[in-house]
Amino acid sequence: MAVTAHGKEESDGLHRLLVQVSAGAAAEHAVVVGAGALRAAASELARFCAGRTVFVLSTPRVRALHGAALGAAAAGAASVHALEAPDGEGAKTLEIAASLWRAMLRAGGKRDSRLVAVGGGSLTDLGGFVAACFLRGIEVVQVPTTLLAQVDASVGGKTAIDLPEGKNTVGAFHQPSLVVADTELLATLERAELAAGLVEVVKMAALLDVPLLERVEREADLLLGGDARALAPVVAAAVAAKIRIVEEDPRELDRRRLLNFGHTLGHALESALGYRALRHGEAVGHGMRFALQLARRRGLADGDATRIERLLERLELPPLPAVDGARVLEAMRRDKKARESGLVWVLPRELGRGEIAADVSWHEVATELTAFLATPASAS
Amino acid sequence: MAVTAHGKEESDGLHRLLVQVSAGAAAEHAVVVGAGALRAAASELARFCAGRTVFVLSTPRVRALHGAALGAAAAGAASVHALEAPDGEGAKTLEIAASLWRAMLRAGGKRDSRLVAVGGGSLTDLGGFVAACFLRGIEVVQVPTTLLAQVDASVGGKTAIDLPEGKNTVGAFHQPSLVVADTELLATLERAELAAGLVEVVKMAALLDVPLLERVEREADLLLGGDARALAPVVAAAVAAKIRIVEEDPRELDRRRLLNFGHTLGHALESALGYRALRHGEAVGHGMRFALQLARRRGLADGDATRIERLLERLELPPLPAVDGARVLEAMRRDKKARESGLVWVLPRELGRGEIAADVSWHEVATELTAFLATPASAS
Repeated sequence: MAVTAHGKEESDGLHRLLVQVSAGAAAEHAVVVGAGALRAAASELARFCAGRTVFVLSTPRVRALHGAALGAAAAGAASVHALEAPDGEGAKTLEIAASLWRAMLRAGGKRDSRLVAVGGGSLTDLGGFVAACFLRGIEVVQVPTTLLAQVDASVGGKTAIDLPEGKNTVGAFHQPSLVVADTELLATLERAELAAGLVEVVKMAALLDVPLLERVEREADLLLGGDARALAPVVAAAVAAKIRIVEEDPRELDRRRLLNFGHTLGHALESALGYRALRHGEAVGHGMRFALQLARRRGLADGDATRIERLLERLELPPLPAVDGARVLEAMRRDKKARESGLVWVLPRELGRGEIAADVSWHEVATELTAFLATPASAS
Repeated sequence: MAVTAHGKEESDGLHRLLVQVSAGAAAEHAVVVGAGALRAAASELARFCAGRTVFVLSTPRVRALHGAALGAAAAGAASVHALEAPDGEGAKTLEIAASLWRAMLRAGGKRDSRLVAVGGGSLTDLGGFVAACFLRGIEVVQVPTTLLAQVDASVGGKTAIDLPEGKNTVGAFHQPSLVVADTELLATLERAELAAGLVEVVKMAALLDVPLLERVEREADLLLGGDARALAPVVAAAVAAKIRIVEEDPRELDRRRLLNFGHTLGHALESALGYRALRHGEAVGHGMRFALQLARRRGLADGDATRIERLLERLELPPLPAVDGARVLEAMRRDKKARESGLVWVLPRELGRGEIAADVSWHEVATELTAFLATPASAS
């Protein structure tokens, strides 16, 4: 049984990590990671639901794939109500949040009711936000069903919905009471979906965990194939890296911004392209490529930058679609992480060590971006 | 200079109280209370706004009355943007919150932008919620302009909007960075508005602060007349009582529920009557009358109950309009404070000491309610 900084690997290959965050209602919660984690966490889920009005939020696709596993999860509840949202980022609207709140009230939802959110990153973002604001906050369990959601969206308490003016512009910090990341659920994902999730793993590994980077390089084929046993330690390590950062800085005032490596341009690309042309992880991959360019100018060794770029290629990052540079710049100006002093950029200083650079001017970004958009990804 | 438990009275008659709450972003903030508090807090407001994008949210009526004072408040901001919401509870909708968020994004609102909410309890509830969720939370200063908002709504970090299914059903706990309760702003209020605010003072005094109760009894005429100097110590004492409770229990898991004396039936009356027939404070006044009936059956001395009832009469509590008992009961069942085990009732045990009674059955409530609704207020 290997003990990591924030948890341990059980003899059955399951990882149990603990998150301790001072802000928010739940002082401490567990993240259970591994092949078969949902079965292993059955008794915790049952305790969470026991005697409560329980809402299980998912999407049509998730319900079709994993409905049976979910039914068992809410055993012992006073009553169980299924809630449904659309698949994908389109679920993250205020209108859908409102319809869920209203349905929960009509079904007798109370302050001690519980929400179980089962789905990809959009669904866990939405579910977290719905739980955060329903009657000023009820407890939520996150059951992420995509790799992206398992390594990133469901851990750390960030919840949000989108407005036409921007993604994640309305939200709350609301820690879950439990996260169950079962890598067996990932078997149904497309290869491109797994690849997009692995980009977020590389994002964290590049700045925070070089052994994890090496593991992804070594096992890329197994991981892209959705091997639940190979994915388990990768998800656990990425979650552990994220937990360390989140515990230090739950409200993203300082070091938590490191997790935004690749996201400054990534979010702007998604916004300029209308959220359909690229998966989130793919947009972040291109954002990382751009950040590596800025980092090279600030002393990142060319070999280290190239190593990350190569790994993104191995993860089959698709080419960047044609996009209007002016619209991308405009989206960056509206970025919610912008401050009066301008945008901060998260850049690798060396492998395993990121820094927050406040010296990147709009002029430099505009100049670099023009060159970047003119160069196809495969040429890097 | 008298030092109270949570603040001090300055030589100029201003009260400065400190709130220390562990949950939420702001660890500690001040509540400045008194005649001329807005002028006295000018430098604090200027520091809050300095170099930031500042949004000043108010209503047409508030802007007409206090616009000049507000303009000065945001001196030194990088830019100031006026936001407007309707007067009254009708402002607390998700649609209005969404239109404010969208306007803030279009105006370049960022994570370090600031909101100043100026108005009655509905406006400070709305403004607090808009600040709580905008980009996952920005800092807010509350400038309450009604007595109700000064003694209750703007202190403690509860924010919310309404849904058709119920009042305050979507919201967040979000502590303000500063509260400025200037009793000079109350001079423009109708007598009935002041009376409704004083009901909330009596609510707190009856359970928590007998000297405050005596002061309201003694100075009722001055207070109903809107005397800014007479109101200052009353507002300060009510705020201090509330702060003590909120600090112990910021998320209303335990003792904060004491502040709901009169609110269980009060909210249900507002819901059943459609939020127009009664002011919030008036509905709470009738809710207290009902709770006193339940408390009498649990040992509250008849003389103490009568004393509170008499004071409500002196505060010119208007008669309860005709209302359908079945609808009131139904609204209580949907109360967000209801738990699986039923509703809890906040009842005075003796003057200055409240308790949370979990032994009040739906049957007892229904029986007492029938009798209560059949008896006009003036007969009590």
